[in-house]
Amino acid sequence: MAKIREPLFDLPITLPPKASRDRLRAVHAQLRAAILDGRLQPDTRLPSTRGFAAALGVSRNTALAVYDLLLSEGYLVVRPSSGTYVAAISPRPARRPPGESEADGRLSAAWRRAQPVLPAVDGSFRFDFRLGLPDKSAFPFPVWGRLSARALRAWSKTAAAYDHPQGRPALRAAIAKHVSYARAVSCSPEDIVVTAGAQQAFDLLARILVTPGRTVVAVEEPGYPPLRDAFTAAGAKLAAVPVDEEGLRVDRLPADARMICVTPSHQFPLGITLSARRRVALLEFAQERGVVIVEDDYDGEFRLGGRPLDALQTLDRAGSVCYVGTFSKSLFPELRLGFVVAPPWAHDALVAAKACADWYCPTPSQDTLAAFIDEGHLVRHVRKMGKVYGERRGALLRALSRYGGERLQPIGDAVGLHLAVKLSEEIPADELVSSAAADGIRLHALERYALGRPAPNGLALGYGMIPSEQIDAAVARLGQIMSRLG
Amino acid sequence: MAKIREPLFDLPITLPPKASRDRLRAVHAQLRAAILDGRLQPDTRLPSTRGFAAALGVSRNTALAVYDLLLSEGYLVVRPSSGTYVAAISPRPARRPPGESEADGRLSAAWRRAQPVLPAVDGSFRFDFRLGLPDKSAFPFPVWGRLSARALRAWSKTAAAYDHPQGRPALRAAIAKHVSYARAVSCSPEDIVVTAGAQQAFDLLARILVTPGRTVVAVEEPGYPPLRDAFTAAGAKLAAVPVDEEGLRVDRLPADARMICVTPSHQFPLGITLSARRRVALLEFAQERGVVIVEDDYDGEFRLGGRPLDALQTLDRAGSVCYVGTFSKSLFPELRLGFVVAPPWAHDALVAAKACADWYCPTPSQDTLAAFIDEGHLVRHVRKMGKVYGERRGALLRALSRYGGERLQPIGDAVGLHLAVKLSEEIPADELVSSAAADGIRLHALERYALGRPAPNGLALGYGMIPSEQIDAAVARLGQIMSRLG
Repeated sequence: MAKIREPLFDLPITLPPKASRDRLRAVHAQLRAAILDGRLQPDTRLPSTRGFAAALGVSRNTALAVYDLLLSEGYLVVRPSSGTYVAAISPRPARRPPGESEADGRLSAAWRRAQPVLPAVDGSFRFDFRLGLPDKSAFPFPVWGRLSARALRAWSKTAAAYDHPQGRPALRAAIAKHVSYARAVSCSPEDIVVTAGAQQAFDLLARILVTPGRTVVAVEEPGYPPLRDAFTAAGAKLAAVPVDEEGLRVDRLPADARMICVTPSHQFPLGITLSARRRVALLEFAQERGVVIVEDDYDGEFRLGGRPLDALQTLDRAGSVCYVGTFSKSLFPELRLGFVVAPPWAHDALVAAKACADWYCPTPSQDTLAAFIDEGHLVRHVRKMGKVYGERRGALLRALSRYGGERLQPIGDAVGLHLAVKLSEEIPADELVSSAAADGIRLHALERYALGRPAPNGLALGYGMIPSEQIDAAVARLGQIMSRLG
Repeated sequence: MAKIREPLFDLPITLPPKASRDRLRAVHAQLRAAILDGRLQPDTRLPSTRGFAAALGVSRNTALAVYDLLLSEGYLVVRPSSGTYVAAISPRPARRPPGESEADGRLSAAWRRAQPVLPAVDGSFRFDFRLGLPDKSAFPFPVWGRLSARALRAWSKTAAAYDHPQGRPALRAAIAKHVSYARAVSCSPEDIVVTAGAQQAFDLLARILVTPGRTVVAVEEPGYPPLRDAFTAAGAKLAAVPVDEEGLRVDRLPADARMICVTPSHQFPLGITLSARRRVALLEFAQERGVVIVEDDYDGEFRLGGRPLDALQTLDRAGSVCYVGTFSKSLFPELRLGFVVAPPWAHDALVAAKACADWYCPTPSQDTLAAFIDEGHLVRHVRKMGKVYGERRGALLRALSRYGGERLQPIGDAVGLHLAVKLSEEIPADELVSSAAADGIRLHALERYALGRPAPNGLALGYGMIPSEQIDAAVARLGQIMSRLG
């Protein structure tokens, strides 16, 4: 029989028992699957419902119903006075120039070379000097849990709403009060925009301040790569400006810079505090030229000794500074909350950019954080952790002097969650990092943070993840490894 | 004349020539500026639209439209049986010296005209047909609270970490399983990128797919303004494509479109389901030209009757479709979680863009949601709310037919959280909206969602915020108002 050769009949269709009400559904599902995965090709002519029913051993009514269903779903099409055909929904290669990949034809140029983001290497490390992570083992989770449950209960009784992109008023008030107290940043709740961590703050500022292909943005060298990524994505032309023992070399700022991104409290990653005269020079540079300063105060709350300098924002009289704060270091990064203290001219654009990016930050988390700050838990936790990090920093400095000697020179000031060290030339940092990893010690080389080469030969040692009592043993091992290498 | 003393009339309002289409805009902008800079103080009572029109020498329609616009933007509030007042917006300090503004010198061109994002007008409304918000009164908050506490406890015992930008593996697995089951979207956890709501999904897709100034993006007309905002911010050239009773007019897609944003399950705001043949035609168009389709399935889970059509993603065999889902309608918007089901060629760029935007979504929320889905609560809640919304839709249709008659014609299919209606020509939607507001009924006119003018004359009635038993009374009042107007 001719019809036997029609491709449809080659399909292995499994039927439920006769008279089952599921027969229609089973036949429909199998035909549909065959069309979707290309076993039934577009433009394949289907047999008549009579032929189909006979071939499968189903009733004519079932066959009619299956065809109707597939027609109504668009899997089949009827061509008048010709018959029923499989619709053109199967794979058909997109027309694109040869050699161009699917992604190239569709992605904008800036994103075509995107590398897979890999999961962080997790720990078969005995000793972890990873950067940028706080110790959350001493965090008052029971308090947080209680405030979180309370915020959820209170909020669950309100009607659903789209919150204001700028952030919950109670949280903005709490942040304004906190940074005025803790960092002498002068602001009102109106100046605060709540963001999904510091990263979103950088991203929103890049969006509203960068004209793609034109705006020159000065960044510290070495500096913080995710900030550079946000500005590069926005189309900025980055200008790497060196850092010395007083911090950013203001005299090396390019004349055409329209923005300057800087970490004055604790230079990332070198750990240097921007000197008072550099602060003044930087603000003068910005004010004279209408340049915007992005002040990233990522871990400046942890002052572990010495006298703090005021934030640039505090000194600024010309609305040049956008101050970025985060709760990723003082609380924990998984909260994803940070903020910008923005000068008035930036308010509308920044809030509009936030609305455009993701509307607003999750309400219950904002309310929980507001209560946590208001009830004094943030200040208490920062004070407690400041002592813990201060001890660790002390232990690290002692161990470095004991086992490192001339080969490891600490740099930077007693602030924050990490300590940078210079390595002597005969010990290349990348070799030390890989030898240490083989020995169960996680380290980060400074070159990771540098745009240019040669990068500074050294390490940035985070002490957020390593308890005080492990530090001596870890650095002792580092000393042994260095002796093998140097 | 007494009214001359009302503060409004002391405002120097400059009018463009009579019959100019810009009169409305000019009056609106000047009133808005006066409210923002404090010349019109909060709680100032405005004259009637009639008095306002007479005093300024504009038509009554212009006056009505200006009031309506300011009401919908939150600058004015209506106090039932009292009148229209300036809302309690705190005036900002006068901005800056004349000449080039601070913002102009610093903000990139795209953001210089950013308007203040105002708080949503909150409710002195007795009847609320606001769009896009689910009813959260029946949400199982005790369950959510329990899962949330459990997720926090489990997670608090782990070391601090920077999570993977793609999203927590448990949540991606739960979402993949859920959309396969609920929406026949074929995907694996590897295809899912967790985002801060659908808005971030649009924003990330715009970033990776739009070449500024070049990429033509087809959007539905009328359509969803925040999606348009995200693509405009990325530098896209928007092409408005009309919608008819079968959904998007595929034959009207511009030949140079590189992306098409579409709401096939329930067109926003008209509520139409894209027909099967249009689906096929749309996919053909996309496949032949290597065009990317952004399928926004914002409330397609709530099918309130009738047989569902498969998602475009299900039919797509060429990796053309990026499917965007959200938990803002099925759970609540304040959670700020949504997702993209992305074809493989887009994975790396999308994850890199997410990392650049805000690194990753908050960990405890992701873990809570994963457990909520895994334990079946999402499916149960959607089923329960589907019944609730189905009843409300039924009540609304009955009331519309009883009190609206010829003047109100429902359009669209039985899906989702709102119903669109066409108004007969003698009742302008904006007049109906402002008269209804004065009577304690919140409505949204369809023109709010249109790019072009004239916009369709009609309403989009959300039933997420109004209980079934209020619907009849609300529509009865609407009927009375229409009789006054029409």
